[in-house]
Amino acid sequence: MYDYKENIADTLLNQIDQKKNPCVVGLDPILEQIPEYVKRDSKEYKNPFEAVRDTIIEFNKLIIDAIADIVPAVKPQMAFYEKYGSEGVKAFEATVKYAREKGLIVIEDAKRNDIGHTVKAYAEGHLGKVLLTNGTYAHSYNVDFMTVNPYLGSDGLLPFVEACKKYSKGIFVLVKTSNPSSGELQDKSVSDAECVYDIVAKYVYNVGKELTGTRGYSAIGAVVGATYPDEARKLRKTMPNSMFLVPGYGAQGGKADDIIYCFNEDGYGAVVSSSRSIIYAYNREDFKNRYKPKEFPAAARDAAIRMRDNITKTLKKHKKLPSW
Amino acid sequence: MYDYKENIADTLLNQIDQKKNPCVVGLDPILEQIPEYVKRDSKEYKNPFEAVRDTIIEFNKLIIDAIADIVPAVKPQMAFYEKYGSEGVKAFEATVKYAREKGLIVIEDAKRNDIGHTVKAYAEGHLGKVLLTNGTYAHSYNVDFMTVNPYLGSDGLLPFVEACKKYSKGIFVLVKTSNPSSGELQDKSVSDAECVYDIVAKYVYNVGKELTGTRGYSAIGAVVGATYPDEARKLRKTMPNSMFLVPGYGAQGGKADDIIYCFNEDGYGAVVSSSRSIIYAYNREDFKNRYKPKEFPAAARDAAIRMRDNITKTLKKHKKLPSW
Repeated sequence: MYDYKENIADTLLNQIDQKKNPCVVGLDPILEQIPEYVKRDSKEYKNPFEAVRDTIIEFNKLIIDAIADIVPAVKPQMAFYEKYGSEGVKAFEATVKYAREKGLIVIEDAKRNDIGHTVKAYAEGHLGKVLLTNGTYAHSYNVDFMTVNPYLGSDGLLPFVEACKKYSKGIFVLVKTSNPSSGELQDKSVSDAECVYDIVAKYVYNVGKELTGTRGYSAIGAVVGATYPDEARKLRKTMPNSMFLVPGYGAQGGKADDIIYCFNEDGYGAVVSSSRSIIYAYNREDFKNRYKPKEFPAAARDAAIRMRDNITKTLKKHKKLPSW
Repeated sequence: MYDYKENIADTLLNQIDQKKNPCVVGLDPILEQIPEYVKRDSKEYKNPFEAVRDTIIEFNKLIIDAIADIVPAVKPQMAFYEKYGSEGVKAFEATVKYAREKGLIVIEDAKRNDIGHTVKAYAEGHLGKVLLTNGTYAHSYNVDFMTVNPYLGSDGLLPFVEACKKYSKGIFVLVKTSNPSSGELQDKSVSDAECVYDIVAKYVYNVGKELTGTRGYSAIGAVVGATYPDEARKLRKTMPNSMFLVPGYGAQGGKADDIIYCFNEDGYGAVVSSSRSIIYAYNREDFKNRYKPKEFPAAARDAAIRMRDNITKTLKKHKKLPSW
């Protein structure tokens, strides 16, 4: 287990060094892709959503056991849990707890946003503590990082930043997302020198300075999609001390050579995330003949190791590799 | 109960006519503001979050009972439920169920967003049905409308639109939000004629046309803050057949004279939402001497009636009032 009181960016960097790996695994439970043998029979439950809950918990535990010693963090995507209502959220809670017990950092991908007054509720709930009826405060989720959306401007982000300070947590602000239509708003020029995502990037840089850890990186990071290398190169300069959370490697088409621009010259500054191509690797065309459905954890481990080796090899080619 | 198979915009308009009221009440449970006598003792529960859950359910039921005959819809803000983890989400589920039983439309304020593949999970979970381990499909939340964030562009919105078609549901896309910093991104000019929120508004108009009901309004609506009347006037023209969800009246400072621009000349086209100034009216300076904490439901009803009367009076002054 890691020390929660240090700057979470330091914790993340130390974990990256310990695992010699800047790659994180997304935990996106999709019932249709979970091997049949893991699925619980809903007849054994009062409420069929409880069977889904236990299926997800079991699947995630097996994945976490298979990868905990090689990755610094996991990134559960909240959509795939809350999709199943409160029982799905219970599976999320159990997953966070299990991952933390295994010494993993938890990056919650939830892309939350609202006006300031409401964002405070999200920030307290996900990153901080909430008041109970007995007058005490308790953690609801207690994740280490969460992703947040900037469309409402700075007053919708500030309570997240304040929670990061108060609880030694971190956020990744969506700057340039990995999806095909991300440019429809994010790339729009608002002046000769600046587009929408630049405004967000400057905000991230400015508020992030105050939350910089001893290793030079801030608890206020940015989501920068692996699928847009030119933008990544530019954004790396705008936000030199922000950690980038880089989705889009694997299933979404991002390649190691593209991702390299998300790193600084020192070989740090980014965590690369992949979900489907790791956790459902047993179903991948190139893995199918080598792993049976029952061996999905081994397939996930194999895929995670290949991703690590691919990224670190490319990192070695282009950047000064960290002191691993 | 209303017919779920009709276009949800028609359902909403019919409810507005039936109640003679375009105002909706936000259900934002904040433990610190809930009267002491409603609060459950956590000693009576295994898990103190269950006491919070039952407190929220009890509070919301009392509010709903007090206002169900005068408002067309309620707008629970998900942040204030998920804040308390899975037990909070249980309170959300119970609130939705109870409101629907009372014939109210439920507008979930969740501002969800992600890449398309992930948004599909949000859309199925909140608006549609999800696959269970026994091969059947079931509703998780089954709300009527939800709010969504457009920062990721059209491919992050499309699965919501598709769910609206498939399940006869609706969304309100954040266009121009009510908070002070909403202009930092949303108001930025991207050409002489267009700013960021205009791009979103045109998208809402275009995809909305296909989902227009018999009364001329679409299931694809827009969030337009009460606090920006000039923008509302412009946006009303860009999206003539979209329903506007208008937050910011009351606690956020929006006035009836400002809100009027969110309505079309026919007196339809907007639902005005207020949360804190209604449900915690018993705590308002101008109500304090008239209601004891135990009378908070009566105070909420009183505040909801005043809001209705204020909005409809102003509507009568400026627009052709509907055939009430």
